[in-house]
Amino acid sequence: MKSIYNFSAGPAILPAAVIQQAQEEMRDWRGAGMSVMEMSHRSKAFIAMAQQAEADIRDLMAIPDHYRVLFLQGGASTQFAAVPLNLFNATKNQADYYLTGAWSKKAIAEAKRYGQIHVVADTSAQKFTTLPAPGSVKVSPDAAYVHYTPNETIQGVEFHTIPDTGDVPLVADMSSNILSRPIDVSQFGIIYAGAQKNIGPAGLTLVIIRDDLIGKAAENVPAMLNYATHVKAGSMYNTPPTYAWYIAGLVFQWLKAQGGLPKMAEINQRKAAALYAAIDQSDFYHNPVEPTYRSWMNVPFTLTDDTLDAPFLQQASDHGLETLKGHRSIGGMRASIYNAMPEAGVQALIEFMSEFERTHG
Amino acid sequence: MKSIYNFSAGPAILPAAVIQQAQEEMRDWRGAGMSVMEMSHRSKAFIAMAQQAEADIRDLMAIPDHYRVLFLQGGASTQFAAVPLNLFNATKNQADYYLTGAWSKKAIAEAKRYGQIHVVADTSAQKFTTLPAPGSVKVSPDAAYVHYTPNETIQGVEFHTIPDTGDVPLVADMSSNILSRPIDVSQFGIIYAGAQKNIGPAGLTLVIIRDDLIGKAAENVPAMLNYATHVKAGSMYNTPPTYAWYIAGLVFQWLKAQGGLPKMAEINQRKAAALYAAIDQSDFYHNPVEPTYRSWMNVPFTLTDDTLDAPFLQQASDHGLETLKGHRSIGGMRASIYNAMPEAGVQALIEFMSEFERTHG
Repeated sequence: MKSIYNFSAGPAILPAAVIQQAQEEMRDWRGAGMSVMEMSHRSKAFIAMAQQAEADIRDLMAIPDHYRVLFLQGGASTQFAAVPLNLFNATKNQADYYLTGAWSKKAIAEAKRYGQIHVVADTSAQKFTTLPAPGSVKVSPDAAYVHYTPNETIQGVEFHTIPDTGDVPLVADMSSNILSRPIDVSQFGIIYAGAQKNIGPAGLTLVIIRDDLIGKAAENVPAMLNYATHVKAGSMYNTPPTYAWYIAGLVFQWLKAQGGLPKMAEINQRKAAALYAAIDQSDFYHNPVEPTYRSWMNVPFTLTDDTLDAPFLQQASDHGLETLKGHRSIGGMRASIYNAMPEAGVQALIEFMSEFERTHG
Repeated sequence: MKSIYNFSAGPAILPAAVIQQAQEEMRDWRGAGMSVMEMSHRSKAFIAMAQQAEADIRDLMAIPDHYRVLFLQGGASTQFAAVPLNLFNATKNQADYYLTGAWSKKAIAEAKRYGQIHVVADTSAQKFTTLPAPGSVKVSPDAAYVHYTPNETIQGVEFHTIPDTGDVPLVADMSSNILSRPIDVSQFGIIYAGAQKNIGPAGLTLVIIRDDLIGKAAENVPAMLNYATHVKAGSMYNTPPTYAWYIAGLVFQWLKAQGGLPKMAEINQRKAAALYAAIDQSDFYHNPVEPTYRSWMNVPFTLTDDTLDAPFLQQASDHGLETLKGHRSIGGMRASIYNAMPEAGVQALIEFMSEFERTHG
């Protein structure tokens, strides 16, 4: 078997131990004589596993008791609609949005279908290479909520502090940095995240929602987009994505075994610091993001001579460093270094970059 | 490893060869050095696999060129909303629905949020044990579409002919009998199906839609519920449920290797006939459905003495016959005998039923 490091932005690398356990259990899940994929979601064994996964993520993130955790389908793109559809009502259909990259832009475009959107922070003029300074953004008086994207997967900018929105609920698309460090969940109204970066396989979406924000959707909101539906049914209103839920549960157990989120934060910060240092100390590579706001998860970089992009990618792949091509909207390279990327993977990338620069610089 | 037969209604049994291949490929998908679960959906290898899966189901179902095939999330329950949200408009927001069991009832409840629903056939008075006779149901003059549920998973009733709705598009929730026999796709406007019965793992939803029904949704319909979004993006507007798509592709290849849908129909009819015959020739077991409309896929049955239900289920499990408990709304037993259930599994059930009757009758 080829030994590789996978820097894909999502679907992304999963812990090797998780993939190995999934392989071992594939045909006979814990003595059931069948794959977990074939098991009824109403069976006692599946429900016990599902509840353990919820307990584990509650534990990992220290989620307070007055928050529900939902295991849904549809990705963050579905949540772009669900958030306004659940939080807007006849008397209040305005919200504040931060525009800080490609994903917050998509969230805004979708939310505009349902109400009035105030863009209260906008870094598009800086090509999304910076973020608003902490405390610099005012909340609109009539905002039903404030939405932001703590980490922009494509541009590689990340908020390292949580905006203070007072009594107005803060909603975060945490798809690309959930579980990467401890956060204070009590500062949020809703956190949502597609699973395919730091949680598990594509096709699962996690929603963490404060109790008082549930049950406010209008009658004409689709049942499947109404948080109340899923809260009432324990995420089993219809058949959930059972296999993805199972894999997410294995990832949560792996995270606990690593030492939880404080330990992951330490490792993630170290990985990112090493990679940014390698980029910064070279004139051959370049990352355009203001250092204070650089992402720990997604590190885009360009080669000063972009005619070397293709040979870089080819030789990287020859060295087992895969999926380094940058997003088509940005070009260049991008190294996504989520929780499951070992430090050895980042070191291998740094060494290859140094060697490539020596031979092509 | 325990050898069992899994009669779950969904998530359900998958072909043993598919699970085995998934296990073998789990850590190193076709030489990629990673699991398919970890692979970017934008990678050439994944796209080639995804396109092959579409080509295979087109081939299996003989889907005409003027139909699109979508690989989505959210289950049939999401389609209950998507269908009216896409087919209703400002001048026409009425539709006809058949009410023939628990799932069509849910589809109706959801559709009522968006327009006027005419229930044009209703077998609730017969406790959903029969179906309207072919040709007996009239289409309303202003119907945007006619919706029906070809197979009711809970009640075990199945249409063995397709209703004629003239020029009005026919929409079918085919979740529990898709791929079980050849059908004439050209008689439908939209076919949708949750994957977790006859296609693959939970978390994938197949939609087959005629070209002229795409692009009609209003501006305020969520992008993720708008068929046009997914058609335009080849089901990759956002990250699709990649692993479920891969498993579905393996199932399609398995079906082709078995001889395709004509062969599956032959086997499915034989399995169902054998099980119904065993039930009918006994006073100990009972199936309430009018014989003409009995399902090939889901066979509910009761024991005349329901105090024997618990011992029946326990001893069945001891014999490796799993997940036979009936739906909580019906009670008794239910044997779901989808494509992946081998004839030997149905024979084992029949033999156990006979033995149980002999010892308890």
